[in-house]
Amino acid sequence: MSNPTAAMLVIGDEILSGRTRDSNMNHLANELTKHGIDLCEARLVADDRAAIVTALKALSAAYDHVFTSGGIGPTHDDITADAVAEAFGVSIDVRDDARAILAAHYERQGSEFNAARMRMARIPEGATLIENPVSAAPGFRIGNVHVMAGVPTVFEAMVASVIPTLTGGAPLLSQSLRVERGEGEIAGPLGELAEAFPALSIGSYPFQRDGIYGANIVIRGADGAQVDAAMTRLCAIFGK
Amino acid sequence: MSNPTAAMLVIGDEILSGRTRDSNMNHLANELTKHGIDLCEARLVADDRAAIVTALKALSAAYDHVFTSGGIGPTHDDITADAVAEAFGVSIDVRDDARAILAAHYERQGSEFNAARMRMARIPEGATLIENPVSAAPGFRIGNVHVMAGVPTVFEAMVASVIPTLTGGAPLLSQSLRVERGEGEIAGPLGELAEAFPALSIGSYPFQRDGIYGANIVIRGADGAQVDAAMTRLCAIFGK
Repeated sequence: MSNPTAAMLVIGDEILSGRTRDSNMNHLANELTKHGIDLCEARLVADDRAAIVTALKALSAAYDHVFTSGGIGPTHDDITADAVAEAFGVSIDVRDDARAILAAHYERQGSEFNAARMRMARIPEGATLIENPVSAAPGFRIGNVHVMAGVPTVFEAMVASVIPTLTGGAPLLSQSLRVERGEGEIAGPLGELAEAFPALSIGSYPFQRDGIYGANIVIRGADGAQVDAAMTRLCAIFGK
Repeated sequence: MSNPTAAMLVIGDEILSGRTRDSNMNHLANELTKHGIDLCEARLVADDRAAIVTALKALSAAYDHVFTSGGIGPTHDDITADAVAEAFGVSIDVRDDARAILAAHYERQGSEFNAARMRMARIPEGATLIENPVSAAPGFRIGNVHVMAGVPTVFEAMVASVIPTLTGGAPLLSQSLRVERGEGEIAGPLGELAEAFPALSIGSYPFQRDGIYGANIVIRGADGAQVDAAMTRLCAIFGK
């Protein structure tokens, strides 16, 4: 049986303008890999409602799970929740449970629970809240889409609470070997190895640093004995 | 007149498994922004031919330019050139000019120009080569798609040679202000500022570090005088 599949949608002008480097995709990728869910695709779109809706529809139809990051804060450019509601064809309004969470949080902080902050209690109809232990404003799940914050500490906390609730598959095992030879020299034997182990994924990731050309060869698969066998043969090929 | 649009397609299992962090998207985003080309979308897909073909067709139809990174090396998992040929419905074979570049390179290096390396001379019919000053194996352009290497030093060198050949628009100017207040407090005045300057993009990027909550407010636009005026008003609002 193959593993559940997933896609990620990163939302935010600041990533596409180059101002900010996204780190949430890499975090999610590592957590999903450990849990046996295959991240198959990621998309980054701007704070543009039509672009978010189009991407959400395509990804939620194609994969078992979709994870979004960004655009659920209190400011005018935070339009993710509205776009998600539109993609699912449901209404969106302030919801009592989300409002109560925020009201309690701002009371503890001694901050005003103003109109902008109230926006964060707007939840699409039928969604389930995702807890935010860092700054209270919840994410939510609707259908197979998990809507989470863009601030890395909050995103990571939400991922930690969501992933254990999902059915995982076989965690992908991997072993890697660093070879200081040009890819052109290792490509031949590597292709033969890949043919001999069709159930494994064998990747070659070239590098060049301080004038040294080489590649990291990574063998991945769910069957540990096969990964071991392929790595043993790989080491023999390259005399290690 | 609005700026030319662009999308990026990052190709490689290693990014989606979390093993490697992509840095090429951020580099391209910054270079395009300086040149007045708007990066509107990015997608990351695995080394999977059908996924690459589907994404290429969608992106090349929707945007003025598409930039790809990854999958043009000599190993069995490098399938980008074949996928590009399929997406454009053209044949692919070893081409004399690409072969000559590689032959000269390996002769200088004293390395064997073997079958694996010869794969890198396979170029889709009708494509134009993109120079690779780092490791010789060329990228190529076909239609509005620029196919480049995944190794960052090579990718960056190719971007440097491609971007000056493209018609740019007005470079996006930006100014930013760091405000140490929660987004919920700044959201109201910020929304009013955004309404007063509809031609500008005003973004709020929250952070929390060492217990301090705040946001970087970024004002972007092609008209420097307007950006200045909005920043002056922003500083007045937050008493700076």
